Amino acid sequence: MSTRLGELVERLGGHLVGNADIEIFGIASLDDATASHITFLSNPKLRAQAAQTQAAALILSADDDAVVSTGYNGARVVTSNPYAYFARTAQFFAAQQALPAPVGIHPSAVVATGAEIAPSASVGPHVVIEAGAIVAEHVVIDAGSYVGRNAQIGAWTHLFAHVTLHAHCRIGQRGVVHSGAVIGADGFGFANDGGVWVKIPQTGGVTIGDDVEIGANTTIDRGALADTLIEDGVKLDNQIQIGHNCHIGAHTAMAGCVGVAGSATIGKYCTFGGAAMVLGHLTIADHVHVSSGSLVSRSIREAGQYTGFYPLAKNADWEKSAAIVRNLTTMREKIRELEKTIKSLTEK
Amino acid sequence: MSTRLGELVERLGGHLVGNADIEIFGIASLDDATASHITFLSNPKLRAQAAQTQAAALILSADDDAVVSTGYNGARVVTSNPYAYFARTAQFFAAQQALPAPVGIHPSAVVATGAEIAPSASVGPHVVIEAGAIVAEHVVIDAGSYVGRNAQIGAWTHLFAHVTLHAHCRIGQRGVVHSGAVIGADGFGFANDGGVWVKIPQTGGVTIGDDVEIGANTTIDRGALADTLIEDGVKLDNQIQIGHNCHIGAHTAMAGCVGVAGSATIGKYCTFGGAAMVLGHLTIADHVHVSSGSLVSRSIREAGQYTGFYPLAKNADWEKSAAIVRNLTTMREKIRELEKTIKSLTEK
Amino acid sequence: MSTRLGELVERLGGHLVGNADIEIFGIASLDDATASHITFLSNPKLRAQAAQTQAAALILSADDDAVVSTGYNGARVVTSNPYAYFARTAQFFAAQQALPAPVGIHPSAVVATGAEIAPSASVGPHVVIEAGAIVAEHVVIDAGSYVGRNAQIGAWTHLFAHVTLHAHCRIGQRGVVHSGAVIGADGFGFANDGGVWVKIPQTGGVTIGDDVEIGANTTIDRGALADTLIEDGVKLDNQIQIGHNCHIGAHTAMAGCVGVAGSATIGKYCTFGGAAMVLGHLTIADHVHVSSGSLVSRSIREAGQYTGFYPLAKNADWEKSAAIVRNLTTMREKIRELEKTIKSLTEK
Repeated sequence: MSTRLGELVERLGGHLVGNADIEIFGIASLDDATASHITFLSNPKLRAQAAQTQAAALILSADDDAVVSTGYNGARVVTSNPYAYFARTAQFFAAQQALPAPVGIHPSAVVATGAEIAPSASVGPHVVIEAGAIVAEHVVIDAGSYVGRNAQIGAWTHLFAHVTLHAHCRIGQRGVVHSGAVIGADGFGFANDGGVWVKIPQTGGVTIGDDVEIGANTTIDRGALADTLIEDGVKLDNQIQIGHNCHIGAHTAMAGCVGVAGSATIGKYCTFGGAAMVLGHLTIADHVHVSSGSLVSRSIREAGQYTGFYPLAKNADWEKSAAIVRNLTTMREKIRELEKTIKSLTEK
Repeated sequence: MSTRLGELVERLGGHLVGNADIEIFGIASLDDATASHITFLSNPKLRAQAAQTQAAALILSADDDAVVSTGYNGARVVTSNPYAYFARTAQFFAAQQALPAPVGIHPSAVVATGAEIAPSASVGPHVVIEAGAIVAEHVVIDAGSYVGRNAQIGAWTHLFAHVTLHAHCRIGQRGVVHSGAVIGADGFGFANDGGVWVKIPQTGGVTIGDDVEIGANTTIDRGALADTLIEDGVKLDNQIQIGHNCHIGAHTAMAGCVGVAGSATIGKYCTFGGAAMVLGHLTIADHVHVSSGSLVSRSIREAGQYTGFYPLAKNADWEKSAAIVRNLTTMREKIRELEKTIKSLTEK
Repeated sequence: MSTRLGELVERLGGHLVGNADIEIFGIASLDDATASHITFLSNPKLRAQAAQTQAAALILSADDDAVVSTGYNGARVVTSNPYAYFARTAQFFAAQQALPAPVGIHPSAVVATGAEIAPSASVGPHVVIEAGAIVAEHVVIDAGSYVGRNAQIGAWTHLFAHVTLHAHCRIGQRGVVHSGAVIGADGFGFANDGGVWVKIPQTGGVTIGDDVEIGANTTIDRGALADTLIEDGVKLDNQIQIGHNCHIGAHTAMAGCVGVAGSATIGKYCTFGGAAMVLGHLTIADHVHVSSGSLVSRSIREAGQYTGFYPLAKNADWEKSAAIVRNLTTMREKIRELEKTIKSLTEK
């Protein structure tokens, strides 16, 4: 399958310089692209490479175009954000090649009376949908997924195989939930009574906005009373844990293995590196970026990059530095004594 | 549905002051409660707020009651642990509102000949139960769960959707296992033979006591020869990994993303903050509390709170402190030289 | 069931000293073994214990044999690696006792037209296999697993219950994939466009070699364009996250909760302790060993052991040392001032 370059640019925007009638068959990297591909330049350091690409068309910024256009003879698509343009172009070709999910309910699925499944939705083999659930138009639910009582799934959202969406949990439109994700398990709430834990029922739900992606084996707990909230455009990688009553602001992204303890409120446009952890009941401002492996143990009121992990070293070197870290108070004491001694020496 | 306050107190204990005939429809926070609710005061700082609550009844301690009773006109339930009383009250109302699971075996479930399913148990759609498994009275097994050969599930235990309980693993009574949990996968045991790993068969099982809760996507490995042991009342949050042949003492609680390597023995009444890690073959005493993000690299013989994570800072500040941490031996050397120089100066 | 000792040694190698006709019923530890067992000595410190064992036969090294044979009267199997020999012996007895998986396709499984299932394969209840998938001879796919379109599974590989193997992903021969593992979910790839994340389609797959074991709830993402690669003999424990386009070298082993960010290239024969993390796009040499809880933030070019975690302490002690770590630049400044002052003193 192929697409006229002109049609692609009409759809995705940008300024086309060159032949609109070229047929494009796909997208490839600067090096791998051939005369049937479109490619992109998002890193100015690769300008020389871009000028040499064999691609039929090149997506690039105006600044890069001023330099690259002198050496490159193909068509150019000039845009303010070539990397995002690449992503949308790749989406376009991926959608062309994707097999459409079969519309309707697979005969092996178990759909309770009283669940509403839109006619254009696709419900795969061995899926279970409980009573009161609402599945909107063009939703795709792959094999073996579970949709609890009164759960809601917005239009065009895709649940991959083996997703669990528990009772009274809602996800908006155009969402993607990967395999093994569990949305709406009980939050971890117990009262201690003489050493024994007494369970606090978790009667809230999970409310997830539009355009949210949730990674494989990620878990988002239901709230204790109110709902756990995930705003529009949030992207969660795999193996993430979101505790009960967390509130994650719009367009925040978290890499794999991140953990957020209960009742944390995280701003919009934040990013969290892999395995970063956030303690419970904290507040994190918008535009905060937490480095991988860092533990957030206090609220962060100011935007910026925050880090806290022990630097890696050869094991023998680490053993020495760790031994000193254990005794830093001793080192500080020695410095104080030195200061005192010197003061008395200089005062003489 | 509602309940006479007197009936609630007969069931849950505590000393009732006020009208036993009030009908209570549910539990709510101090601020949200109306005349149809019972509420609770567990934090003495909120006494003034408690005195103003609109709730029909208030759960509180004797100390708080001495102060609050002068300003509050509703009924009071005086108890030594108001927070635990709140939890039990919330359980009572949640149970009233819960839909009972349908008794019996769903026609889409696959139950092997030779599995024993109690008549009062509920086996959901697409559940698979292998031969020799024993499912006790009032057990609920939700959609898509798997119960292996000769596995045992005690009375009133609830397996949510998509739980895996492997062959020869046992869980006691009143347990809760959340979606995606895997109990009894092989422990990670290999012998190295010239660089190549040779698998050591994991022929032990997992034995889990009564009143244990296991979070979503948590994994508990089967033992190599003997069983992995989880004692009564243990509470595990989501995404936890328990290695083979671990032994977790009664009423210990672990927050999300904790990892415990193989053959660790952990005492009773311990708590582990999120993402804490315990190395293999260690022993941890009773009443040990490990902070979030801390790695336990040696046995802990004494009760108490233990911590070990790098403090978070603005990235620029962290870079400076991390550079010094890498060179702490140099800093120590400088201090030693200063001490020597000063000694020689003072001896002059 | 039992086996002649001579037959065992013919099968597994080693030098037999003693009666080849003894019947062995199983393997046990030095202490637990009886006259029907074979046992092993892999730690020279246990020589005295080995000499006292009641086992019918003892696996040990030539060095240990020289000492132990004087006190022990049973048969001995002398081999260069007794621990690996133990593992293979245990495998032999475990295979004897294992129930063979039922050959053929369970009637509740949903196998698409155009999937190729070898006649000797076992496909369990509620398994779903999509069109174009190839399942080789002697493969076992347990209950509720999902095999995507055009996925491939090599001979003798075992998928436990609830495994997800996505479209176009391949695993080689003699592999083991534990419950809840997800192979081939989308990598975490997005372009940022004015704060909003634009998904980059993940059109690569996952290619996994022979003799690979993948733990419960472990996730291995599909590549963005090219495949994520896991070479022969790799062993991954539970709850591990492997990002898109990673390349893990042969015979590398990772303990539970490890995370590897996208496009990391890891050498052969490496080991990673539990919860170690590797940042994206790094390169790690062969024979690198990373300690538990350590974050690898730069490439490692040289074999060896690397560590980086904050040492655990009593919480009160940690608070003091952490406060100093936060202010290490102040401490360094003080030392510099001391050096200056002393210099001026000594120059007088």
